[in-house]
Amino acid sequence: MAAYVIGIDFGTLSGRTILVDVHTGEECAESVFFYPHAVMDEALPNGQKLPPNYALQHPQDYLDVLRVTVPDVMRQVGACAEDVLGLGIDFTACTLLPVDANGTPLCMKAEYRDRMHAYVKLWKHHAAQSYADEINALAEARGEEWLKIYGGKISCEWALPKILQVLREDPELYRSTVRFTEAADWLSLVLTGTETHSAAFAGYKALWNAETGYPSNAFMTALDPALDGIVGSKLSTRVLGMKEIAGRLDRKGAELTGLKAGTPVALPMIDAHAAMPAINLTEEGALMMILGTSACHILNAREARNVEGICGYVKDGVIPGFYTYEAGQAGVGDVYDWFVRNCVPQSYCAEAVERGIGLHQLLRERVCGERPGECGLLALDWLNGNRSILVNSDLRGMILGLNLQTRPEQIYRALIEATAYGLRIIMEQYEKSGIPVNRICAAGGIAKKDGMMMQIYADVLNREIAVADSTQAAALGSAMYASVAAGAYPNIQAAAEKLSKPCSRTYLPDAQNAAVYDLLYREYKTLHDYFGKENAVMLRLRKWSAAAKQE
Amino acid sequence: MAAYVIGIDFGTLSGRTILVDVHTGEECAESVFFYPHAVMDEALPNGQKLPPNYALQHPQDYLDVLRVTVPDVMRQVGACAEDVLGLGIDFTACTLLPVDANGTPLCMKAEYRDRMHAYVKLWKHHAAQSYADEINALAEARGEEWLKIYGGKISCEWALPKILQVLREDPELYRSTVRFTEAADWLSLVLTGTETHSAAFAGYKALWNAETGYPSNAFMTALDPALDGIVGSKLSTRVLGMKEIAGRLDRKGAELTGLKAGTPVALPMIDAHAAMPAINLTEEGALMMILGTSACHILNAREARNVEGICGYVKDGVIPGFYTYEAGQAGVGDVYDWFVRNCVPQSYCAEAVERGIGLHQLLRERVCGERPGECGLLALDWLNGNRSILVNSDLRGMILGLNLQTRPEQIYRALIEATAYGLRIIMEQYEKSGIPVNRICAAGGIAKKDGMMMQIYADVLNREIAVADSTQAAALGSAMYASVAAGAYPNIQAAAEKLSKPCSRTYLPDAQNAAVYDLLYREYKTLHDYFGKENAVMLRLRKWSAAAKQE
Repeated sequence: MAAYVIGIDFGTLSGRTILVDVHTGEECAESVFFYPHAVMDEALPNGQKLPPNYALQHPQDYLDVLRVTVPDVMRQVGACAEDVLGLGIDFTACTLLPVDANGTPLCMKAEYRDRMHAYVKLWKHHAAQSYADEINALAEARGEEWLKIYGGKISCEWALPKILQVLREDPELYRSTVRFTEAADWLSLVLTGTETHSAAFAGYKALWNAETGYPSNAFMTALDPALDGIVGSKLSTRVLGMKEIAGRLDRKGAELTGLKAGTPVALPMIDAHAAMPAINLTEEGALMMILGTSACHILNAREARNVEGICGYVKDGVIPGFYTYEAGQAGVGDVYDWFVRNCVPQSYCAEAVERGIGLHQLLRERVCGERPGECGLLALDWLNGNRSILVNSDLRGMILGLNLQTRPEQIYRALIEATAYGLRIIMEQYEKSGIPVNRICAAGGIAKKDGMMMQIYADVLNREIAVADSTQAAALGSAMYASVAAGAYPNIQAAAEKLSKPCSRTYLPDAQNAAVYDLLYREYKTLHDYFGKENAVMLRLRKWSAAAKQE
Repeated sequence: MAAYVIGIDFGTLSGRTILVDVHTGEECAESVFFYPHAVMDEALPNGQKLPPNYALQHPQDYLDVLRVTVPDVMRQVGACAEDVLGLGIDFTACTLLPVDANGTPLCMKAEYRDRMHAYVKLWKHHAAQSYADEINALAEARGEEWLKIYGGKISCEWALPKILQVLREDPELYRSTVRFTEAADWLSLVLTGTETHSAAFAGYKALWNAETGYPSNAFMTALDPALDGIVGSKLSTRVLGMKEIAGRLDRKGAELTGLKAGTPVALPMIDAHAAMPAINLTEEGALMMILGTSACHILNAREARNVEGICGYVKDGVIPGFYTYEAGQAGVGDVYDWFVRNCVPQSYCAEAVERGIGLHQLLRERVCGERPGECGLLALDWLNGNRSILVNSDLRGMILGLNLQTRPEQIYRALIEATAYGLRIIMEQYEKSGIPVNRICAAGGIAKKDGMMMQIYADVLNREIAVADSTQAAALGSAMYASVAAGAYPNIQAAAEKLSKPCSRTYLPDAQNAAVYDLLYREYKTLHDYFGKENAVMLRLRKWSAAAKQE
């Protein structure tokens, strides 16, 4: 008899569901559903314009992913509901929404649907930076212990800045909110009828840890008296650790997905983290890079150390027995895409159409023969801010070295190189803090597609980089957690041993290239520190820009 | 009886001839001829590839301008040779070529035509920077007095670095050269049969001055023993001041142009300078900005002062009785054009085609409604190096403040703003040195066409800017010098009084915009000094790029 598990990966623009053979790990079917509302960064569904740096989503899109893709994968292989042993999901984070006492998102209620703070704040909603600054300043002034876990600075992408933004900018809506919940946890509720909150999300994004819980009420009220009592009310303390499951499909969840009521639902994982077991990175010193629109760098370590500027670490956050550290880059594929959308001339587009290739490929082909340093350009990759190690979403991108002979493909390559330098900054920060990086594996669509990029990464890091085969490692990881939830394997390591897809392609550094990139990286580091710490020109430009827009 | 004078403006890509009524100043006919070889920056005519930063021209193109355009303007109005009282030319500078004893350009001789150093080195040939560095270092070490006249640093665009490059890189060709001559002076020879050298070119570009002549032989031989005796041999001392004329058309010159033998030919002027009388800028404190591919800023002053980083000053260099100062920006229109050629996406091109407008206009329309600072961008305009006041052609452009919402038209505007900040740096340098700037007038095609740019300039400088009507001010100025050479007016001031075209359009600064631009300019100044003086990253990138290309 066929036995499957389902993994669903909720990304930035789409949800991807895969059906996996629980014994062999074979990915038997796949279905992708693009969110109809995509990312709302310009206007609400009613047309109301949004302020700068907003990134909202509509929760109906997530429900549609479940409704469409789960039956679709079943249909593709002719599976019946009984064949599916378990379901696991992973989600972008922190992707937060306010819900009422019934768990209904406020934006889906008629009385709130015209209010922007009623919507899901996507991970890359960056309009809460001033609140993050406020939280950081207060936490530092008070010497809050938890701040060190998160590298000394929290990001505006996280839960508390987003909650504080709602409180300050729409206090009435704040009062109407019964819970602020991660979208992932909200889906657990939708599927099982039971409210749970995954320790992974709470730990990495909401300042929670198993020993001390959330920040103290004293801190919360010092931040704003209106936050008094938030922990245990609007912020649920029903946080479950990795050894538990979210629950089992209830009748409604079964109806929505076409699966059987009672099917176990694993505790949701953060999307990037879910990929780790999928490529069998379960030992100390294993670093996984998830390269997509942004990048997550996740590292298993035996010890808890405070590393300045990284996102944080959570004990048993991904693989039981390890402190798993996370650092991130706020823009990677997004940066390359921005360039391709905005800065590629017509003649290139015509050539790409004629040759039947994409613009990314065209640009790569035109520049891959150049040597490191040949373009004479150096970029800072902060077009979406800096997540690690400067932790400031108001930082901005820079391109330096332009001359009248500079060609678009050279700028494109400089942006790729810049993301590689950004990664090296993070790796050196780990190593400086005594946390070893023994093995590097890259996952995510662009890692597999873009060989030039991966070779540049290997050369810039001067390290071997393996690339995961699966382009849906996160979904596969979710299916693995589902297999553990279903009892098919005793733990995630055992599931990984059996179901993971080891990397087959490896990029080796070229010594000569690495030597040139060492020089270039040193220049990057100098400018990284100059614009990140010494000359706050980027922050002032951003402030003046915001002021000009408001006039 | 009709009485005309002819002015010919030799630009970077074309020669433009106008026929002017000597009594009324009316521009009766115009003819433009584009150089068939244009700028050779990639290959010689034989296909041989050129190294980076080369910009060569072919002197046959200049002859063709004379051959084609002079008869053309005559034909347009039905003038006969007797109606033309005089001829004046202006030329880009320093645009230098080696000639033999007959005045034949070496590149036009079969035995040299495959050698790159036999060709004309156009003003923007930037491959002699290392020689400029060497000259500057030696001159500074020896305390050469003339260095102060030129702001303490000479440019790689000037004569001596270009000559030194020939000597070092093709010593045989250097030995075969009888004279290094400005293209303008070579045309005087072609037209009149007599060799002369204009004090304007010698003064501004070849370190000559009326009191002490060229740099001493001691300096020359310290620079390179092979330069021993160059002054008076390969570098002619037959330098004529403004009160003289170049000569009269000889038989060959008359044949070439279709004019009458014996017609007076004015001493040639540097193209930018020739525009000054054309817009009647003949008093103290009058600043003329010539805005084209690059920019020249020319200022009449009563006193000789050494101003760090400006190009230099020459007594009686443009208007008799004044020390006329020159400063420059190596890239203005060229920078905007680079952007339009390389970084404008297909959808914009399609819109421009559909609406029947140019891309420059489309970009301006899309961004002219934004407030200063709104784009959040700040650029350094050094895509073609920096002429004043850093005097380093190896400096490079930069764009800072990019984010994922940045649109192409915003980058375009930031580049325009950057050139305005670059101009303000120069103006402040003049004023800091006690040289007043009382009146600003802009000339050149883009000044007339681009109202957004001129308003930005007015706002950034917080000064009134008048714009010259004539788009051929240089050619008109040349015609005026021709009218003086013909004896129709006693001096250039009198000719200007009668023939000039005063500015009719004026841009007034907006106080609110000026206040924001003050803030932005301060940031520009900080980065100008950081990348121009403190962190030589641009120079290192250029060095590594050159090394990578040679591998």
